Amino acid sequence: MTRELLYFEDLEVGQRFRSGAWSLDAEQVRSFARQFDPQPFHLDAEAAEDLFFGQLVASGWHTAAISMRLMVEALPLAGGAVGAGGEIRWPRPTPPDSVLRVECEIVEIRPASRGDRGWITLKSETINQDNEVVQVLTAKLVVPRRTNREG
Amino acid sequence: MTRELLYFEDLEVGQRFRSGAWSLDAEQVRSFARQFDPQPFHLDAEAAEDLFFGQLVASGWHTAAISMRLMVEALPLAGGAVGAGGEIRWPRPTPPDSVLRVECEIVEIRPASRGDRGWITLKSETINQDNEVVQVLTAKLVVPRRTNREG
Repeated sequence: MTRELLYFEDLEVGQRFRSGAWSLDAEQVRSFARQFDPQPFHLDAEAAEDLFFGQLVASGWHTAAISMRLMVEALPLAGGAVGAGGEIRWPRPTPPDSVLRVECEIVEIRPASRGDRGWITLKSETINQDNEVVQVLTAKLVVPRRTNREG
Repeated sequence: MTRELLYFEDLEVGQRFRSGAWSLDAEQVRSFARQFDPQPFHLDAEAAEDLFFGQLVASGWHTAAISMRLMVEALPLAGGAVGAGGEIRWPRPTPPDSVLRVECEIVEIRPASRGDRGWITLKSETINQDNEVVQVLTAKLVVPRRTNREG
């Protein structure tokens, strides 16, 4: 697979990127939860009925991890997707059998103090099969400048 | 394992919780990356030498997932750890062979509009074996009130 890598100079506010789709299922939800978030509403559909969400749902960090996978595939940044952090919200839970995709938009661009790179702020919405937003991540990423490309 | 569950009424600003430790290794780093963040600096130690971090490092979302696991074990909230979102920063990368732990502090408490629950803001630092902070997460969590406990 070859695609044109994007350097800092190639980016502008308002540019958008769309990912492919990820199909979640109950076994994925439970497998992630067993490793990283072993709470009953992420592990056991029956127990979950009496708990906060009223049903089995994915850990928010699982939704975040899937969103990262979709974002990495959608966004051909030179240097990779390297984030310093950001703000994350889960306005809605993600039950099994969700089909997720990500839509990203560059909302801010600014030079870094180091001349070989710049910063972008990327707003990424993770959206389910009913077009409901299940996660909003606004993250700062560092992107190299083309002028410092080697080779 | 029995421990006293904490309800909204039991919580106050300044309360702190400390987790146990999590030992990371290169295989964990690569396994998470293969699933959720397949970028060369998370997959291949040799390739990583020439890339942004200069070494193999864990995906930030892997650090976040491990931190959640440690937090869930450290923080006996009634109703579980249910987050609406928050702010996350990775001031330092996490290479394999890191030993991570989490220290949490309640930094804000406020009632919710629904009388059966309240909100807390929890600041969680993920700290490595050299006492360096590798992640700071400031998250809003919903906690049930004791007065609505059933049974």
